[in-house]
Amino acid sequence: MTRTVVVRPLTAEAFAPFGDVIDAADSPSYPINQGRCRRHHDLARLEFRPPDGEPAISLFDSEPVALPYELDMMERHPLGSQAFLPMSEHPFLVAVAPDAGGVPGAPQAFLTRPGQGVNYRAGTWHAVLMPLARPGLFAVIDRVGEGDNLVEHWFETPWTILAQDENDER
Amino acid sequence: MTRTVVVRPLTAEAFAPFGDVIDAADSPSYPINQGRCRRHHDLARLEFRPPDGEPAISLFDSEPVALPYELDMMERHPLGSQAFLPMSEHPFLVAVAPDAGGVPGAPQAFLTRPGQGVNYRAGTWHAVLMPLARPGLFAVIDRVGEGDNLVEHWFETPWTILAQDENDER
Repeated sequence: MTRTVVVRPLTAEAFAPFGDVIDAADSPSYPINQGRCRRHHDLARLEFRPPDGEPAISLFDSEPVALPYELDMMERHPLGSQAFLPMSEHPFLVAVAPDAGGVPGAPQAFLTRPGQGVNYRAGTWHAVLMPLARPGLFAVIDRVGEGDNLVEHWFETPWTILAQDENDER
Repeated sequence: MTRTVVVRPLTAEAFAPFGDVIDAADSPSYPINQGRCRRHHDLARLEFRPPDGEPAISLFDSEPVALPYELDMMERHPLGSQAFLPMSEHPFLVAVAPDAGGVPGAPQAFLTRPGQGVNYRAGTWHAVLMPLARPGLFAVIDRVGEGDNLVEHWFETPWTILAQDENDER
């Protein structure tokens, strides 16, 4: 049996159970720098749990993926949030899932617009980073510190992520 | 009297007195995500000082500037670091200055490469955000919380920031 997920546009409302959409086009702002710049202030709920959790800025440089994409693994970070900000104007693919008794339930997949990032809440099941173009370069704000902050789940039957138009053609 | 600063390429060594260059091309990394991605880990020294300083992710959406640029003001944030990660592949302009008895000394100006961000240490004099192209969209990781975290200094005689080749032509 094939299990499929169709990609949807990323919106704050659809993503709310999983975390924050970090997006200048869809958030309030105020002027700074003599009016030349707008600050969209404090757009993500950051979590850095004990023991000794601290925030860090890292860069992830990933190979791109293509659709349809076989999703065979999801992971989560119980001790902290994890934010991904693309350092390019390319859309990227995001997949998340509700928790279903300690394993991921049915995944949901989203396509970002240029200028959007995401922040996964602590403990949210998500796929690994899935850029669709080069450079797959992202700034990542997550937790560093002691403690086991990575849980992986491998699906017995992988899910297939389909582009919206691939599905429409069926 | 005209006071000028010539733009130089941004390097970690030249920027070290002021903060961190956040750069995948010039930092160690290790493989993650089954080898498809490289993590350049914990590239910035983050500071979020009391009272009640916490990290936040904001977006700055700025009009671009052009060279030559008249630098009439610099600012600093005594209570926290401030990191700028471009959400495009456009280079941007960075200007910083050593402290000279509570005011900025002679500024230094740098041009980033695509994929580079910067993190200003707490208390570092710097110019406001200076993208050179649209979109001037940046992820900003800085401190939120109570306390007076902004000091501005207006120059009696502005500095003029010149492109490298403008200077070569003289």
